[in-house]
Amino acid sequence: MHDKEQNAFSSWQMNCPVSIPTNADYVTLAHGEGGRLSRKLIQERIVHALSNETLLAMNDAAQLPRVTGALALTTDSFVVSPLFFPGGDIGTLAVYGTINDLAVSGARPLWLTLSLIMEEGLPLVILDRVLQSIAEAAQQTGVKIVAGDTKVVPRGAADGLFINTAGVGELIAPIPSGAATLQEGDELIVSGTIGRHGIAILAVREELGLEPLPSSDCGSLLRPVEILRESMGHQVRCLRDATRGGVAAVMQEWAEASGMTLSIEEQSLPVSPVVRGISELLGLDPLHIANEGTMMIAVKQGAGADAVSFLKSLPETADAQVVGTVKHRGIAAVTIKRTLGAEQPLDDPLGSPLPRIC
Amino acid sequence: MHDKEQNAFSSWQMNCPVSIPTNADYVTLAHGEGGRLSRKLIQERIVHALSNETLLAMNDAAQLPRVTGALALTTDSFVVSPLFFPGGDIGTLAVYGTINDLAVSGARPLWLTLSLIMEEGLPLVILDRVLQSIAEAAQQTGVKIVAGDTKVVPRGAADGLFINTAGVGELIAPIPSGAATLQEGDELIVSGTIGRHGIAILAVREELGLEPLPSSDCGSLLRPVEILRESMGHQVRCLRDATRGGVAAVMQEWAEASGMTLSIEEQSLPVSPVVRGISELLGLDPLHIANEGTMMIAVKQGAGADAVSFLKSLPETADAQVVGTVKHRGIAAVTIKRTLGAEQPLDDPLGSPLPRIC
Repeated sequence: MHDKEQNAFSSWQMNCPVSIPTNADYVTLAHGEGGRLSRKLIQERIVHALSNETLLAMNDAAQLPRVTGALALTTDSFVVSPLFFPGGDIGTLAVYGTINDLAVSGARPLWLTLSLIMEEGLPLVILDRVLQSIAEAAQQTGVKIVAGDTKVVPRGAADGLFINTAGVGELIAPIPSGAATLQEGDELIVSGTIGRHGIAILAVREELGLEPLPSSDCGSLLRPVEILRESMGHQVRCLRDATRGGVAAVMQEWAEASGMTLSIEEQSLPVSPVVRGISELLGLDPLHIANEGTMMIAVKQGAGADAVSFLKSLPETADAQVVGTVKHRGIAAVTIKRTLGAEQPLDDPLGSPLPRIC
Repeated sequence: MHDKEQNAFSSWQMNCPVSIPTNADYVTLAHGEGGRLSRKLIQERIVHALSNETLLAMNDAAQLPRVTGALALTTDSFVVSPLFFPGGDIGTLAVYGTINDLAVSGARPLWLTLSLIMEEGLPLVILDRVLQSIAEAAQQTGVKIVAGDTKVVPRGAADGLFINTAGVGELIAPIPSGAATLQEGDELIVSGTIGRHGIAILAVREELGLEPLPSSDCGSLLRPVEILRESMGHQVRCLRDATRGGVAAVMQEWAEASGMTLSIEEQSLPVSPVVRGISELLGLDPLHIANEGTMMIAVKQGAGADAVSFLKSLPETADAQVVGTVKHRGIAAVTIKRTLGAEQPLDDPLGSPLPRIC
């Protein structure tokens, strides 16, 4: 499917919302080499787009205030292809992805770093569009991008644009006790319809010709996590955004960490008609498809209905559902009761059929 | 020089210290997709190599203790080609680079994040070798790698292996006042012979046939910065590791930040015979060539000799020299008094002749 020629620049050419003028300026190797062009690119485009005082200081490291509480630290690289997709782009993904990792770990996101690896020849208007998305997502979630880095690699050595974000947050009590503390009877919740991000990427990439194109769930989980912390407190055992590998991968990891069996019911899973349709057509299971704004939550026995009703009060988690429970280790680490049939082990695939979805 | 075919895998094939068995295992797309193979790669190779309790928890974000002081945060991506070079590899570079950014900003490095973007087909023995370098460099400098991420992109979409590290440190008083506070008479120091990293990469990449190959200065600046802080205190105005763009790029940035002229004397610059020889042969100026373990320091008038003598007590900065002074803005932002001739403006090139040196 992807030979070298096809790969070159597929990332930005496909589904690109920006028209590239014929006399467009492009990223050159010199933009990455620490000379005048590097400083100009950083100051006039990147710092300008993300403008805040810490970045303006242009130090080797950002100097930041003291934090009262304990810290959380995370990192994620983004290599999604194409760069733009219905519901988001690599920039929104890079901000929300890292914010969500902090949020589900019990932290209030404070600061992000931003590192760009650009391929020589990337149009600067594309870079500007991605930086705008980053600035908007950061502003919407109240985090500051305080340090950055840019590298340029020769044509063919990277596909368009890769982004890394790292995030620092402050842990806020009560911190979820974690998957290792799961107990029999705990209830499992998904915060929204599943599989939307992976299907959105697939539909664009494979040019399935759907109209309208299905949209990614790419977004911030900050408010839903906050509402759970404030309303449910210690009732919440653990949370995890269900990205690569989908909800199934989270369940496998939690089952491993706890030694319990995680069991879900197929008929309670929220799946949109378009995701269900495309999945059936292509023989995919929405449980294995990536999300970028949907999480799994485990709460103590009896707390599921309340948690779901708090989540439903927010538009981004209006489709939350209790989907299963935690049991003593039985026939498999993760099981599913299919709509027709008995409880059976859920597939734990080696990989997934969708590379480069984030 | 670099067409697509040449680029593919040049990163690890060249100067590789590991022999690749004919039945070697390779990174596959499935290693990056969040399924069983992803978990296996992370647990058995990455967490194993870097083993510490925080990483073992395998949370979305590392939970870290409270830090007493103010924080510093930095990030850097590494795309060096080839992956291995005399004096280091992409792994040592990724650890020391970020540690040095924290150190010169006045911070004690505490924690690093590590994000790998791997090309499908990268031999796992190469990954293991790089992880070993990362583990050794982290241990030597007393920092912990506490969070990570791995992505795999299809063959041709990235060249071998890219690494991002982000670093969190605690600012330690007295914090250097910064380039904006430079004053007339301040003395400029370089901490060692310049241009070694860029020349080492160039010699490997262009197969110049030198024997022995010149070695990079890739290393930690933690101890030299500490000795200056402890011995010189408020006498130190600012420090900066002179990476991409070399010592010249640091001087341009400091001149911009302060509005002063930074003036150096060619004959005081420490340059090794091999760097001088290759530079003359290829028409390069060592001032523009990258370093990865050498910094520029500005100290108050009269403090230069003491600072240099403290630096000379450490093997990594045994060649430190006072190389110039800060003056009121004169004929140019940065000037050089050549060995033969009068003071003249120093070139501020658009880029540099050496892409992908870090």
